[in-house]
Amino acid sequence: MAQTTPNHTQTVSGWAAHDSSGVITPYTFKRRENGINDVTIDILYCGMCHTDIHHVKNEWGITMYPVVPGYTCKSTYGSPHLTAQFLHSLLPLKMHEITGLITKVGSNVTKFKIGDKVGVGCLAASCLECEFCKDSQENYCDQIQFTYNGIFWDGSITYGGYSKMLVADQRYVVFVPENLPMDAAAPLLCAGITVYCPMKDHNLFESQKKNIGVVGLGGLGHVAVKFGKAFGHHVTVISTSPSKEKEARERLGADDFIVSTDAGQMQSRKRTLDFILDTVSAHHSLGPTLELLKVNGTLVIVGAPDKPIALPSFPLIFGKRAVKGSMTGSMKETQEMMDLCGKHNIICDIETVTPNEINDALDRLKKNDIKYRFVIDIAGKSSNL
Amino acid sequence: MAQTTPNHTQTVSGWAAHDSSGVITPYTFKRRENGINDVTIDILYCGMCHTDIHHVKNEWGITMYPVVPGYTCKSTYGSPHLTAQFLHSLLPLKMHEITGLITKVGSNVTKFKIGDKVGVGCLAASCLECEFCKDSQENYCDQIQFTYNGIFWDGSITYGGYSKMLVADQRYVVFVPENLPMDAAAPLLCAGITVYCPMKDHNLFESQKKNIGVVGLGGLGHVAVKFGKAFGHHVTVISTSPSKEKEARERLGADDFIVSTDAGQMQSRKRTLDFILDTVSAHHSLGPTLELLKVNGTLVIVGAPDKPIALPSFPLIFGKRAVKGSMTGSMKETQEMMDLCGKHNIICDIETVTPNEINDALDRLKKNDIKYRFVIDIAGKSSNL
Repeated sequence: MAQTTPNHTQTVSGWAAHDSSGVITPYTFKRRENGINDVTIDILYCGMCHTDIHHVKNEWGITMYPVVPGYTCKSTYGSPHLTAQFLHSLLPLKMHEITGLITKVGSNVTKFKIGDKVGVGCLAASCLECEFCKDSQENYCDQIQFTYNGIFWDGSITYGGYSKMLVADQRYVVFVPENLPMDAAAPLLCAGITVYCPMKDHNLFESQKKNIGVVGLGGLGHVAVKFGKAFGHHVTVISTSPSKEKEARERLGADDFIVSTDAGQMQSRKRTLDFILDTVSAHHSLGPTLELLKVNGTLVIVGAPDKPIALPSFPLIFGKRAVKGSMTGSMKETQEMMDLCGKHNIICDIETVTPNEINDALDRLKKNDIKYRFVIDIAGKSSNL
Repeated sequence: MAQTTPNHTQTVSGWAAHDSSGVITPYTFKRRENGINDVTIDILYCGMCHTDIHHVKNEWGITMYPVVPGYTCKSTYGSPHLTAQFLHSLLPLKMHEITGLITKVGSNVTKFKIGDKVGVGCLAASCLECEFCKDSQENYCDQIQFTYNGIFWDGSITYGGYSKMLVADQRYVVFVPENLPMDAAAPLLCAGITVYCPMKDHNLFESQKKNIGVVGLGGLGHVAVKFGKAFGHHVTVISTSPSKEKEARERLGADDFIVSTDAGQMQSRKRTLDFILDTVSAHHSLGPTLELLKVNGTLVIVGAPDKPIALPSFPLIFGKRAVKGSMTGSMKETQEMMDLCGKHNIICDIETVTPNEINDALDRLKKNDIKYRFVIDIAGKSSNL
């Protein structure tokens, strides 16, 4: 059993990788007691993000074994100026795409009651002192301030969502709308909010029809297409995989599809898009994609390649275009997004796996052999685990 | 004498490079007759942009000798998807930082009269048909449409401002305010407008005080600092050269100065700037500079490095920051900027050279040994040439 800090008295069953083979096996550990601002959640489902692979296999060289995945999302690893140690220390503080039922509430908790259907996303701690925390934008809290937060620094949330139960501060918990299935709603907590915020920042949830592009049709991209179509936009999917065209058009309702490696297709759509959401985390040049934007158009990166992106200056300058970043969303925005998904019945396309299928799922995830998100059935409602 | 197209009947004295040695010598060539929409300008002064060096020495491999510099500006070379031939064909269409006196006006010209003090900048031709041309944003006219413009395509403006006279369509000519000296006003036509537009786009000519950063203190940067201070902003200069601090603070009035290679200085100003104008065309990483921006801040590139810029995604994502491009300005904006400079008495810091000093000046320009712009005294008012 892993070493724990004081007051970590609750025994929890989870699944962890123990070395760089990345093989996930059952693992028992401790969580903190339910504090006055905390809720305890019986986890039903946990989405599997592509970054889980990097962690269980220690591909970024910062993994501390045993690692219980499901605690962070691809957009939250800190700037390259943060040290590996600091990143390392952050990892246990994060969670991911978790849905579950509340089983306990602290004495200060008024928002939630036992039995509520809730979700927990990327955020688990922020400084609570800065302008961003005070303005419900805690996702832009300068994370350096985590190091001064003794409470969570003490290891209070040590492991992620690949486990049966977690304790979370109520601030970082949202309601899941009654009409949404808890499994297909889980990835909304990371994939959904990550694409929702930049789309909202660019007024894409208002009435005016725009031409929007979505680069990459995976966990994030397919939700962006759904949001775009739900709000009446002309949606173009840009992908390296011609095989995705039929699915994009017929199942997701995309209006256009561009194979990004086809220069002719790219050329014929120059200066046609108002906004592009780039969800690809693999290394790629932005030049050809930027040419698709109209003058004054914006491309938002949410995929977070770990190496610097090659940004040619000419397409930026010639089109007064912008490349922007966006990091998940605030808790207020996360609830807003969940409510919107409830209203428009937007859920993720998922494939549910049992905990003993996690390793196979990670292998398939690595090959992009999933439409579009694996969700682990943690509570075993559909399995005997 | 160079080969000319029909109606190019006017003999003009200029200065040209004849091979990749880049040595500039006197050169005589032809210009078109003054058309009905044209004005003829006796050139008094022509600024020397750093990109002139690339051209006279054929450093980009696209120079067609003899080349009369002063016809283009660093922001206008086209996207990497334009062919070398196309770029090549564009070069003769462009001019640069020219001031002079009108000596002839075509029958359709109502805006100008003989004797007017005028300036000509980067733009010499646009399609006149597209939404941008029709909306006084001809600087964002898709340049591909030049290829369909038979009039200018025919070679009608063949050589740049390193010459005694030019013929220009009135659309691409602006008034120089009476109170501005014609020599120090010349670089405003490229350096001035290039920094003015992104600053205007970010509301920096309004009353609210902002914290702005200027990367690079050269021809463009020093004008940006002057604009910033004229409008009451807190201006930080970011430079690789500690030796520029005294000048930046004492002469130009900068409020702060960061040596960009000093990690401690960079760290201490993290998240302090609302806006950064990056005027550096040398290859550089944007990561550390982006960290200086507040959340939601924007860095605008006007320096146009010829190789892709290394753009780390984390500083973009963590701060919801944007990297944007901006290409010179429209003619309407150029006139607006000239008028504003007249009102606030803003001019460039220049060193005037005679035409027979051009080669020495190019050598010094290459070493950045100039505060801040060489201007050629074409008409020889201050020399015997």
